[in-house]
Amino acid sequence: MIVEARKAKFSEPLKLKGGATLPEFEIAYETYGELNAARSNAVLVCHALNASHHVAGTYADKPDDVGWWDNMVGPGKPLDTNRFFVVGSNYIGSCFGSTGPTSPNPATGKAWGADFPVVTVEDWVAAQARLADRLGIERFAAVMGGSIGAMQALQWSLSFPQRVRHAIVIAATPQLSAQNIAFNEVARQAIMTDPDFHGGHYYEKGVVPRRGLRIARMIGHITYLSDDAMMEKFGRLLRGKSAPGYDFNVDFEIESYLRYQGDKFADYFDANTYLRITKALDYYDPAADFGGDLAAAMARAQANFLVVSFTSDWRFASSRSRAIVKALLDNRRVLSYLEIDAPQGHDAFLMDDARYIGALRAYFGNIEL
Amino acid sequence: MIVEARKAKFSEPLKLKGGATLPEFEIAYETYGELNAARSNAVLVCHALNASHHVAGTYADKPDDVGWWDNMVGPGKPLDTNRFFVVGSNYIGSCFGSTGPTSPNPATGKAWGADFPVVTVEDWVAAQARLADRLGIERFAAVMGGSIGAMQALQWSLSFPQRVRHAIVIAATPQLSAQNIAFNEVARQAIMTDPDFHGGHYYEKGVVPRRGLRIARMIGHITYLSDDAMMEKFGRLLRGKSAPGYDFNVDFEIESYLRYQGDKFADYFDANTYLRITKALDYYDPAADFGGDLAAAMARAQANFLVVSFTSDWRFASSRSRAIVKALLDNRRVLSYLEIDAPQGHDAFLMDDARYIGALRAYFGNIEL
Repeated sequence: MIVEARKAKFSEPLKLKGGATLPEFEIAYETYGELNAARSNAVLVCHALNASHHVAGTYADKPDDVGWWDNMVGPGKPLDTNRFFVVGSNYIGSCFGSTGPTSPNPATGKAWGADFPVVTVEDWVAAQARLADRLGIERFAAVMGGSIGAMQALQWSLSFPQRVRHAIVIAATPQLSAQNIAFNEVARQAIMTDPDFHGGHYYEKGVVPRRGLRIARMIGHITYLSDDAMMEKFGRLLRGKSAPGYDFNVDFEIESYLRYQGDKFADYFDANTYLRITKALDYYDPAADFGGDLAAAMARAQANFLVVSFTSDWRFASSRSRAIVKALLDNRRVLSYLEIDAPQGHDAFLMDDARYIGALRAYFGNIEL
Repeated sequence: MIVEARKAKFSEPLKLKGGATLPEFEIAYETYGELNAARSNAVLVCHALNASHHVAGTYADKPDDVGWWDNMVGPGKPLDTNRFFVVGSNYIGSCFGSTGPTSPNPATGKAWGADFPVVTVEDWVAAQARLADRLGIERFAAVMGGSIGAMQALQWSLSFPQRVRHAIVIAATPQLSAQNIAFNEVARQAIMTDPDFHGGHYYEKGVVPRRGLRIARMIGHITYLSDDAMMEKFGRLLRGKSAPGYDFNVDFEIESYLRYQGDKFADYFDANTYLRITKALDYYDPAADFGGDLAAAMARAQANFLVVSFTSDWRFASSRSRAIVKALLDNRRVLSYLEIDAPQGHDAFLMDDARYIGALRAYFGNIEL
């Protein structure tokens, strides 16, 4: 499937939850399949930290750049683009095309940098609603995402209850735990104390806080994989040697892997974006306005729900998904819940587990258009 | 209990596992109680990353500086110094008194710094055996430790089977997992990429890689506590504010706590020591010389064992302790195993859980002198 990235520009200011206003913004997006005449077959796919609007397919001029959920979305895939009109939307604050810290600040003509406001999951969803308007989508057949993408799907069901028929919430949590916030904070501190960070104004210095980004990515990677999956994949294998070096070069395969992942990430990811995404995660807590009562918070949702969690996910453990399920049951919502016994940890939501993929295929097959 | 720190100097060179030789070394240590005439009541207490030979009591001139295991060791305590002669030993490579990177290199008269060799758990134990010789202890009634201290207790039973009657191995693992190594590697990378690290030669530059040490400590802290314990202690409480700041100052209590712990640690802990301890941990694997067969590795142990693990410890999970228990059972060794249902995570071994403390008291009470 050959796809094309697009941008939609919105000139009406967007008031953000934190109080600031974006005077204008763009959203990078892709679409696959065709919107039907009844406009009833649109599915919004929301992405997680390190992904983008490039959900599926490849670009004509970049055959190796395959979308991040290409095993899920496409012709004949579980989310079948022969039947559905799929929208992949990049969120604002990103460094992959939507307006974010690397974009020009209309007030100065220079990149926003540190002056780009902290955006929230609610703001992401509000901006995506403008995109839906632009595309002529009154109501989505489904809004879907894993991890941070699942937070967006959840929030869509709360911000725009009438506009979501099915919310598909995978590897999710209704709020970060103290441990989740702690990992985010270490990553932020690594970036912010990097001498090349310059308080976020590093673009104009011609440098990038690479050291901090490397550390942030390494920490992230550890939390995406289960202990068992890491042991299965890397174990205690030495890297190209038969005995430890008794020095500080790479000894173990896992060290080499993490350094490589960190270096690669630092080459393309923007530090100001990373900081803002982690803050959006930390802040997300739909129950906060209801005295911590998630069931009360979920009362306004009207969608049917599919909630999926993975047993080995210790970043957002199944117990967090069960809290969402409980809140939905308390509201007598129609829902399906799958707890998949998969070994890969949080990243399992991107994998090809047959039960998981099969369940998604069945669920989409049952959505009437 | 008023105690006194001592040093023992050893002039005979110590050949290290990694191939280097320490031409001479000192061990910082403390003793509590009296060695009996039969010399049968000595107990060696080994410490973990952030502790030292100051196991119990206080110094005459520093009444607030209480030993790190004072709830366990002292007159009338579970390890009763009215009955036992307790030795707290700092390991070599430490920055708390024993010879380490901050000590003068006899070849140059300047601090060893980056030239201090990588030491191993086996080396720590070999050096402690010299201390035991010096103190006239042929055989310990028990060698005891938690976490890294437990690795030393385990290794004592293997390096010197005849010299250990009881090995008390708490919150242990027989080897780090890939995830454990991964966390260590991120901490090392944070330190080694700090511009103030200077390849480990920072003493002569008059600086300290504080940024890296802060990050290393924050990561460590997360792994010492369980997700539940952190949620119980900090939850999602905001720090001195009623709403998020939508900026990058402290929002949550957990952020404040981690920053504080990181800053405090960077004030006193030596980065070269931190690097070497994490390497000692990564390398430790008594089964490695036996094709990964831990039972074969443990065949030479002759001590009786007490193994204790904690259900909420995800750094060294109970399954790791059970691997030790299995290897001991395969060798028909006398052992007790306690899996304590405690919520605190890895740090539970320092806490006052009544069943845990009571079991240790009973175990020591049953050791014949």
